[in-house]
Amino acid sequence: MIDSLLAVARGDAPADLVLRNAKLINVFTGEIENTDIAIHQGRIAGVGPGYTAKQERDLSGAFVAPGLIDAHVHIESSLCLPPQFAAAVVPRGVTTVVADPHEIANVAGAPGVRFMAEASRDLPLRVELMAPSCVPATPMASAGATLSAEDLQSLLEDGTVRGLAEVMNFPGVIAADPQVAAKIRAFAAQHRTIDGHAPGVLGQQLNAYVAAGIHSDHECVTPEEAKEKLARGLYILIREATNAHNLAPLLPIINERNHRRICFCTDDRQPADLLAEGSIDHMLRTAIAAGIDPMIAFRLCTLNAAELYQLHDRGAIAPGRVADLFIFDDLNAPRAREVYTAGQRVAADGKLLDPVPVPTIPDDLLHSVKVKWFGVRLDVGVRKRHIRTIGHLPNQLVTEHKVMNATIRAGNIMADPARDILKIAVLERHKETGNTGIAFITGFGLKRGAIAGTVAHDHHNLVVIGCDNNSMLTAAKAAAATQGGLAAADGNNILASLPLPVAGLMSNQPIESVRDQYANLLKIARDQLGSALHDPFMAMSFMALEVIPDLKLTDLGLVDVKEFKLVDLFA
Amino acid sequence: MIDSLLAVARGDAPADLVLRNAKLINVFTGEIENTDIAIHQGRIAGVGPGYTAKQERDLSGAFVAPGLIDAHVHIESSLCLPPQFAAAVVPRGVTTVVADPHEIANVAGAPGVRFMAEASRDLPLRVELMAPSCVPATPMASAGATLSAEDLQSLLEDGTVRGLAEVMNFPGVIAADPQVAAKIRAFAAQHRTIDGHAPGVLGQQLNAYVAAGIHSDHECVTPEEAKEKLARGLYILIREATNAHNLAPLLPIINERNHRRICFCTDDRQPADLLAEGSIDHMLRTAIAAGIDPMIAFRLCTLNAAELYQLHDRGAIAPGRVADLFIFDDLNAPRAREVYTAGQRVAADGKLLDPVPVPTIPDDLLHSVKVKWFGVRLDVGVRKRHIRTIGHLPNQLVTEHKVMNATIRAGNIMADPARDILKIAVLERHKETGNTGIAFITGFGLKRGAIAGTVAHDHHNLVVIGCDNNSMLTAAKAAAATQGGLAAADGNNILASLPLPVAGLMSNQPIESVRDQYANLLKIARDQLGSALHDPFMAMSFMALEVIPDLKLTDLGLVDVKEFKLVDLFA
Repeated sequence: MIDSLLAVARGDAPADLVLRNAKLINVFTGEIENTDIAIHQGRIAGVGPGYTAKQERDLSGAFVAPGLIDAHVHIESSLCLPPQFAAAVVPRGVTTVVADPHEIANVAGAPGVRFMAEASRDLPLRVELMAPSCVPATPMASAGATLSAEDLQSLLEDGTVRGLAEVMNFPGVIAADPQVAAKIRAFAAQHRTIDGHAPGVLGQQLNAYVAAGIHSDHECVTPEEAKEKLARGLYILIREATNAHNLAPLLPIINERNHRRICFCTDDRQPADLLAEGSIDHMLRTAIAAGIDPMIAFRLCTLNAAELYQLHDRGAIAPGRVADLFIFDDLNAPRAREVYTAGQRVAADGKLLDPVPVPTIPDDLLHSVKVKWFGVRLDVGVRKRHIRTIGHLPNQLVTEHKVMNATIRAGNIMADPARDILKIAVLERHKETGNTGIAFITGFGLKRGAIAGTVAHDHHNLVVIGCDNNSMLTAAKAAAATQGGLAAADGNNILASLPLPVAGLMSNQPIESVRDQYANLLKIARDQLGSALHDPFMAMSFMALEVIPDLKLTDLGLVDVKEFKLVDLFA
Repeated sequence: MIDSLLAVARGDAPADLVLRNAKLINVFTGEIENTDIAIHQGRIAGVGPGYTAKQERDLSGAFVAPGLIDAHVHIESSLCLPPQFAAAVVPRGVTTVVADPHEIANVAGAPGVRFMAEASRDLPLRVELMAPSCVPATPMASAGATLSAEDLQSLLEDGTVRGLAEVMNFPGVIAADPQVAAKIRAFAAQHRTIDGHAPGVLGQQLNAYVAAGIHSDHECVTPEEAKEKLARGLYILIREATNAHNLAPLLPIINERNHRRICFCTDDRQPADLLAEGSIDHMLRTAIAAGIDPMIAFRLCTLNAAELYQLHDRGAIAPGRVADLFIFDDLNAPRAREVYTAGQRVAADGKLLDPVPVPTIPDDLLHSVKVKWFGVRLDVGVRKRHIRTIGHLPNQLVTEHKVMNATIRAGNIMADPARDILKIAVLERHKETGNTGIAFITGFGLKRGAIAGTVAHDHHNLVVIGCDNNSMLTAAKAAAATQGGLAAADGNNILASLPLPVAGLMSNQPIESVRDQYANLLKIARDQLGSALHDPFMAMSFMALEVIPDLKLTDLGLVDVKEFKLVDLFA
């Protein structure tokens, strides 16, 4: 194959395709070249004049950039399988994503990761998987699986993953915890990229985190944090997620001199955002609109990420690299008019040209929700009058650790919507253990009914928040009935649901349908249940995440995150 | 070990050393930081305040840059072994060289390469060997060894080499020659760096060269050539060698936007230049003096090369990286006041602090000159009156292919110094085959006597140029008598010699002594033999290089390089 590519490059044989009159975004030189691009067998054969081809297209001066690379994303957060995710992002010009299948790994372990690799085959999107590094997040919740250093090594050795995904256990990294160190060592020994996750870690702690072998961070919130991490040698992946908007605050740090180690990523984006705004193409436009030189902005989305992840076959338009192309008209607001992957025109005018393949889903992934319903009781008998209460804060993942007077009736602690105290329960759903954590939460503002879901970071047990036990059980059972998903209920009535039957995390329907069902759930939560939150389902999905302070609930009970231990409901 | 490094980084244990009040050249951000640097076990533990240490030094605001990386050098061209080479460059701030042991490989094959690795151990210099890709250069000369794709692979697998050195057979690369392709494939499969060498290759030929998997080029002569190669994706290694001064012409291409893929290299530097001007530290100062921003100039010498060669443990001062430091006072003319390698102060004020180790040299490397003297005759009987004559051009490696009238006496073609026609001979010296190429050369200007040497790129046979057969044999035998080296003779008298007993290429004496002996040879060639050339020995060493046009002589005869074939002496 290389022989025929070289023959075309030399001009000794016709190319498969020549794109004439392109304005090539040359990320190496930083200049825009008026030139032709010869493509053969999916790769760039040559740039420049003199090529003939079986097929020729005149681009009439359109801009051609390398396909964009999203440096860090959890595809599961789109609530869709890789093919439907690809259908959303490829027409936007994103042709590679570096994906951390952390969510499905917490449900289904290494087989879940391998399924994501299988489901990403034959797509117009190149999905580069990283090995989830922190499964489970802690021993204070029951995840569906465990990934040891050996498990990760075997994913590396069989080529399923490219590097180690965000090492969220930053205290473990800094403290040189042997298990964390073993995971890092396995990937460092193969010279692989090791992504970080170190919110607010600075100074000596940051020095230790970097010295341990971490290469990147996507948790920066302030310019000062980003600058310090950049100075210590981390690549900075600026994130614009549905629930974390870091682009605007971090834009000012980007300049001609320091930008080579800055990338863009989406981390977690919901269908509505992917479809309305886009992926990192949205970040590209936002950056340019804010005054970042377009060439720099393109480098953040292409060459820089290619270098970080050693994807030297892409990230630029140059001989031998894959012909992944983002074709557009307006340098001040690049919007993909056409997209090529591996030399094939795969999208035009915001739509894929061909349907995406339908992945085969293993049966156990379609039956991952195993709740021991027999004997489930959501009653909470009184032992003391003061209860530890999760204080939800608007648009934040951190919570307050509150101690409140309990509302008591007939010897039980009750939800009390009038005081905005709701009941929250987390039901173990992986192994039918019957583990059930029950506590109370304020700040959610439901006036009646309940909402439930099997998306509950990171262990993804079944979480439910509501005003009364009956509504809570109805909602929880509705979410479980579809082998996972989101649901809203009032009394015995299921008001709406979004089935997510693949590992309880993802739909196998088109992303537009997922978006619409999700929007319906939000409308019902607001209009019928009285929630004041922008997105109570997303908020709920983080109330069980026992690594983000201050107080969270898992299937094993309340977690005081700062103390890093389980605590009693009664204070 | 990582545990104690992290403990120091965290501030939980004292460092081995803290350098206080440093102006750190931060190649990531492009800024200069006033800070402290904590060093432990040879690595940077942390940057910033708050560190304690067993030893503290106040740098009083001196600048601290990462140790410099010479991106491409043939150590053999220093005529010294790696320890003596290190003694010359380390005090200059060069702490890493990416070295192609191409010369010794042509004499001694893979064992020669392994010897260079051995001789580079325990030095204050990190020598990163690349695998010589073109041994022998062509079948039109008898080298001492052959390196097949399998040989190269075994050097890679046992860790002797890091990547593939300059693939000089660019026609073979472009034509997809199976043997060349096999070598590239072996290194590409391991994602290793593959250096190029493509003088003047542009347009479609360049596209093919890049598409084949080549990553760099250090042969650019003009800004246009360098810009085109940069645009196609090659790293540009700007070279300032003893015999190739590319820095001044290429400086104008360097700018803030494109410099990330530009490095500095020395390729071939003689002892006199290394000791008087320096290594790439000289290029650094020259670039800054010419107006290149110092931060950019430092990146060319540090981070850029580290990225190209995947030397992610150096090239910057950051936690976890090796503590190789270049300490200096004047940002406008950085000259190493002190140098640290692996956290040890190894040089100050231009001198190493400790003697370099003496390598053990295998006996066969000390006995590599095997000429079959019995029956050697340098007479050339007349067959025709017109002879093909090598036309040496001042300061160039290319020659003219001249046809001249022969000077004939007693039935033999004679050297004729009055017409500046000298005799040149190449005697096979690796396997005692008795192969002897004899021809004539103009442009050297010797008036009497002869010069000889076993440094004769790339096959390194014994080459001799002179005015009469007797002087030629005296010079040749003098060079051979020391198991290789350079010599000048007049009649039966040896006027001077520089023994190079290690593979006939390198001295085991201090580099200052080599410089002085070399200077003495040049003085004698000029004053006693009448040579008008700046350096007739270096010029001679390229007259046998059958890959540089137009006409060259090997032990197998005259080579018409453009036609790529052996041709007869008589035209």
